[in-house]
Amino acid sequence: MTTTRTVPDVLRRARELVAVPLRASVDRLSDEVRRLVEYHLGYVDQYGRPESNGSGGKGVRPALAILSAEAAGCPAAAGIPGAVSVELVHNFSLLHDDVIDCDRERRHRATVWALFGIGPAIIAGDALLALAQEIVLEAPAGGSEAGRCLAEATGAMINGQALDMAFETAPSVDVDSCITMEAGKTGALLGCASSIGAVLCGAKPEVVSALKEFGIQLGLAFQAVDDLLGIWGDPETTGKPAWSDLRQHKKTLPVTAALAAGDSAAAELASLLHNEHLDEAQVARAAHLVELCGGRAIAMDEARGRLAAALASLDSVPLEPSAGRELREVAGFVVAREF
Amino acid sequence: MTTTRTVPDVLRRARELVAVPLRASVDRLSDEVRRLVEYHLGYVDQYGRPESNGSGGKGVRPALAILSAEAAGCPAAAGIPGAVSVELVHNFSLLHDDVIDCDRERRHRATVWALFGIGPAIIAGDALLALAQEIVLEAPAGGSEAGRCLAEATGAMINGQALDMAFETAPSVDVDSCITMEAGKTGALLGCASSIGAVLCGAKPEVVSALKEFGIQLGLAFQAVDDLLGIWGDPETTGKPAWSDLRQHKKTLPVTAALAAGDSAAAELASLLHNEHLDEAQVARAAHLVELCGGRAIAMDEARGRLAAALASLDSVPLEPSAGRELREVAGFVVAREF
Repeated sequence: MTTTRTVPDVLRRARELVAVPLRASVDRLSDEVRRLVEYHLGYVDQYGRPESNGSGGKGVRPALAILSAEAAGCPAAAGIPGAVSVELVHNFSLLHDDVIDCDRERRHRATVWALFGIGPAIIAGDALLALAQEIVLEAPAGGSEAGRCLAEATGAMINGQALDMAFETAPSVDVDSCITMEAGKTGALLGCASSIGAVLCGAKPEVVSALKEFGIQLGLAFQAVDDLLGIWGDPETTGKPAWSDLRQHKKTLPVTAALAAGDSAAAELASLLHNEHLDEAQVARAAHLVELCGGRAIAMDEARGRLAAALASLDSVPLEPSAGRELREVAGFVVAREF
Repeated sequence: MTTTRTVPDVLRRARELVAVPLRASVDRLSDEVRRLVEYHLGYVDQYGRPESNGSGGKGVRPALAILSAEAAGCPAAAGIPGAVSVELVHNFSLLHDDVIDCDRERRHRATVWALFGIGPAIIAGDALLALAQEIVLEAPAGGSEAGRCLAEATGAMINGQALDMAFETAPSVDVDSCITMEAGKTGALLGCASSIGAVLCGAKPEVVSALKEFGIQLGLAFQAVDDLLGIWGDPETTGKPAWSDLRQHKKTLPVTAALAAGDSAAAELASLLHNEHLDEAQVARAAHLVELCGGRAIAMDEARGRLAAALASLDSVPLEPSAGRELREVAGFVVAREF
């Protein structure tokens, strides 16, 4: 799955379409909240001075929202309230996840809680979630249905995050629970992003369902790749040390799949991971054991299988051809990372 | 303003109407989140064993939501999705406020963050906010409009909380800013609660506006009383030490109004409050100075004036008489606390 990672034109086009309405939505926040959100989105630095790079994200979710309107035969503009609102919900989750996971850095910048405190980071996330609902419900048509899709996806995402937290203290986690968690944490919002534009322009239920399924499967493919990168990713590219997820004892798909193998290597892996602190040799050995037990191959199969399922879902309904092609391009881009 | 504080029948009636749909909404949460929310609402103790008392709150917001449907001439049932959703948003804010304010106890029980950790408390609050939107948008009619009202009120409440946080480090706060903060933190959600039932049953815009204004003014009256109790409340009743808000240097209405007096007593108060820790004599002196500078009288006037404005708003439109009477009873109950 080593593909050239060229940023599809549609991501640039979506960023251009969404930049102004996204900023306009942020401008509606009160002064105290806005300065936190503007920092988080990279509009300003920690002293409130303008930064040029804007939102650090690649804008995959807004692009999917706009393409889903176009795929249903509507103009891109119909998808914009959905694009803005999914981007706001995504950033709500980043703000809160950074507090929960005690992450002091994101995209090579200090996180909001690390810089301004836990209270401000909670408040900023809360404000984005409420704002996202306001924006989507103000859409000229379809807002109520789209708001429901957004609230439901947000709830599923939060359930996934809760399950992920519970895994930290669980003695063991099975593969199914791991995939349930990832479907919530990553799949739900991508499913909403991939269909909300179609919802806003009143597309047929079967078109909405197929687009949503595309997004959920794409989310699972993305997550499987992320899990692989968390262990075998190139530190130069990921910005994290080698075998990072193993050092942190994260119960990701390759690890849970390996532990389920039930052979002597799995037993050795389980006993290794019982150690609270692993030295370099132990971490390297654990990575080797995960591979030996088939954890790496299973996660690669999962990534391929989910990507295929995502693309198959697009084939199951008639879509506007050019938008359909661009949805496939975005899917390829999302999973095409070296591992 | 010393009135007998008899719990109006309508609060009991609303609690009975809302208890089952509220529990049903909580049952929709995933296992990991539900157990936190069930603890927070007093359904279960920290070990998950059922508790008899149910939600510790008085249920003022659900009662207002139901009365607002009835005031607009609709059956109470029309207000239930609004009643459940405002109660969920209220509890979202309690869960997050306890983290932000580092409060380890609420209603004589350990708070969720104190018992289960900051991450779980954030997640539980987030889940309630998303759930509130789902519930209101599922209403058989008027859900979209009601969802907008709820999202807008939630945003205003969060702005109020952000302003309150900013006050902690602000060198000084003026009376107007203080009232703006309280209008957001307390008024906005009461304004939504007092009108959401009418919104759900398609009441005329002027009826919705008058009911909303009633709730906002009632919220400000409630907050002024709360500020008075925070300084002069009976420790037996409030469960907090005497002059509690002064000990914590809270910039509440009586204090900001006193500091604005501009005389030598105000100057003495300002210089006293510059001390990071106040001993008993200093706290007693500060309370005396707040009163001397007119802070106590101003807050009492504010409470009376806001209550009168709330009741006047009810008089400005034709309402179903029995519901109108009960709204007045709830208003009397909300502000009738000894101070």
